[in-house]
Amino acid sequence: MIITLTTDFGIRDSFVGAMKGVILGIAPAVRIVDLSHGIPPGDVRKAAFALMTTAPFFPAGTIHIAVVDPGVGSSRKAIAIRTQDAIFIGPDNGVLSWAVKGQEHLEMRSVENKAFLLERVSSTFHGRDLFAPAAAWLASGKDFRDLGPELHEFKREAWNDPVRVQLGWQTEVIHVDGYGNAITAFRADHPHRVRSVLLADGRRLPLEQFYGAVAKGSALAVKGSSGFVEIAVNQGNAAVELGLDRGSEVIIA
Amino acid sequence: MIITLTTDFGIRDSFVGAMKGVILGIAPAVRIVDLSHGIPPGDVRKAAFALMTTAPFFPAGTIHIAVVDPGVGSSRKAIAIRTQDAIFIGPDNGVLSWAVKGQEHLEMRSVENKAFLLERVSSTFHGRDLFAPAAAWLASGKDFRDLGPELHEFKREAWNDPVRVQLGWQTEVIHVDGYGNAITAFRADHPHRVRSVLLADGRRLPLEQFYGAVAKGSALAVKGSSGFVEIAVNQGNAAVELGLDRGSEVIIA
Amino acid sequence: MIITLTTDFGIRDSFVGAMKGVILGIAPAVRIVDLSHGIPPGDVRKAAFALMTTAPFFPAGTIHIAVVDPGVGSSRKAIAIRTQDAIFIGPDNGVLSWAVKGQEHLEMRSVENKAFLLERVSSTFHGRDLFAPAAAWLASGKDFRDLGPELHEFKREAWNDPVRVQLGWQTEVIHVDGYGNAITAFRADHPHRVRSVLLADGRRLPLEQFYGAVAKGSALAVKGSSGFVEIAVNQGNAAVELGLDRGSEVIIA
Repeated sequence: MIITLTTDFGIRDSFVGAMKGVILGIAPAVRIVDLSHGIPPGDVRKAAFALMTTAPFFPAGTIHIAVVDPGVGSSRKAIAIRTQDAIFIGPDNGVLSWAVKGQEHLEMRSVENKAFLLERVSSTFHGRDLFAPAAAWLASGKDFRDLGPELHEFKREAWNDPVRVQLGWQTEVIHVDGYGNAITAFRADHPHRVRSVLLADGRRLPLEQFYGAVAKGSALAVKGSSGFVEIAVNQGNAAVELGLDRGSEVIIA
Repeated sequence: MIITLTTDFGIRDSFVGAMKGVILGIAPAVRIVDLSHGIPPGDVRKAAFALMTTAPFFPAGTIHIAVVDPGVGSSRKAIAIRTQDAIFIGPDNGVLSWAVKGQEHLEMRSVENKAFLLERVSSTFHGRDLFAPAAAWLASGKDFRDLGPELHEFKREAWNDPVRVQLGWQTEVIHVDGYGNAITAFRADHPHRVRSVLLADGRRLPLEQFYGAVAKGSALAVKGSSGFVEIAVNQGNAAVELGLDRGSEVIIA
Repeated sequence: MIITLTTDFGIRDSFVGAMKGVILGIAPAVRIVDLSHGIPPGDVRKAAFALMTTAPFFPAGTIHIAVVDPGVGSSRKAIAIRTQDAIFIGPDNGVLSWAVKGQEHLEMRSVENKAFLLERVSSTFHGRDLFAPAAAWLASGKDFRDLGPELHEFKREAWNDPVRVQLGWQTEVIHVDGYGNAITAFRADHPHRVRSVLLADGRRLPLEQFYGAVAKGSALAVKGSSGFVEIAVNQGNAAVELGLDRGSEVIIA
């Protein structure tokens, strides 16, 4: 069994280590994999993007924990969502929603059963006291349906789906990665035959096969590894150099 | 068996990787868990805090290595401390002292036996050449008492215990975490019924159950997940916004 | 079996996590060890240094993946190099060359066989789609010779070997580590009896056994843990304080 961790805990503290200690105390044989702990504090969308694009590369049955949780201790629920391939556990604030987007037969539970939690649950660190032990108990064979009451709704983080406009499809940047590549909401397998991307300032970037197809420092669009059309600068930082950020609107032409 | 690692090696170099290679060469089946490698260079207190607050969440028998070691190669000893639950290995500079604070029946050894070390021990990287192999040999079943001569003293990093004053208990900030939360030396389970925390500038922060109990951007005190009273700003950075740092004095009222 | 990872992916994204998911899907029992993911984007030499100095500490048979790959998707080959002790997989851009420097009986293959790759190989993320599955299949017992056509050449990243000059040996800084220590190309086991290091500005630094042999803030030279003579400042940052960078020339006297 594999448990993955996605958090905004950073690397200065040992919060992630504490979660791993709890997991290994309950499920000694489980494999723990870090997806990212460098999510900016409270940035639910960045964690949602990491989970959405990475979870599909894990074996069936993997349990994914996401802890980007500015509302910890408040009335926000702790939820677990089971899909055909995986289980996702985290706060009900949208962080899990992109990973299960478009999937059918979601089964959802509110994580409340004390048998799945540490004996003392702090009000500020549910990653350690609630999400880690719940995932570890599931990995140890406890029944998903025993986590707590069934849920029929959960919070979804939204993006605007692409809209047909005269020049092509208008879409928005939904993620900027660590290299500065700006990933749009336009799926790489969309039937529209992409030729270029138009920026708000009128610049038109050609769609290329790979970054190095243009000169070093030049901008381009590619069908990125995340499954979306993205905007890049060969060996540069597209977000900084082209003034793009989440929410920036571009047209896929 | 589990070995944890706490260092100030950062993530730019492969020092941590070298330690793991050494460990796995000696003890192929051991589980290695990173507590933190983002300790600021030479910051013994930050590493001591990480160990103190995280080690209790690991299964009995876990071996914890801490390498924050500006005195590497000098005459400072390499020590191993065995408690009822765990073994701690690191330089004798105080880095291990908070994790074993208040525990009885400590057994201490100076790590000197060449059978526990790499064949060639550099004078600048004891993490790889001394602490990693010693921990791995212990995990492989070698006897703790064979590490080297018994010790009866070790260096302790001090903090000032809370002092009763007219307005409550005066205490100091002993740690600032990556979110900017300022953790005091006042234990959350202290019999004093905490109502608020007084800052040096006269501000009084209410004790709340969780961060979101006050408006976004407002300051509060909570009984934190580390087991101490801490000062926070809801979705903000308390240390920066309130001018708090290690050693700052506050009154628990 | 152990697979190590060295990349410039950083910790903000989940690229490394995706590689691990792919590896564990193919080779569920493999041990995965991070060497470093903090290589500056595109910095082939820094990754080459990490591999060179760290790989020797891993057990025989370890498979090392390096992904610092600004030319991903272009015509640069993907290569695998087998030495007596290890296998190295990465782009053919020099990143593997220091780790195999001076070793005999290298066996090289171009990684092309589709049976070793993910079904869909993106043109921007060969770490996930090509290097990770190839390494995992090798760890699972597939034959190295089936990776693809044999190669007889690969790209080597060069440094200038030390040159005898009147005052000693002239050499260059080949690496600056995260503490600011400047590592030269002069091997610690060179027969020349090192007494000091001369900087370009005429300063002479004594060779000492360890950092703390000089006063805090003073500069020195040591035979470093990487196997080279390095320049350091006790509890300081030598590169910043002495104005050293990769390529800076110094004389080993």
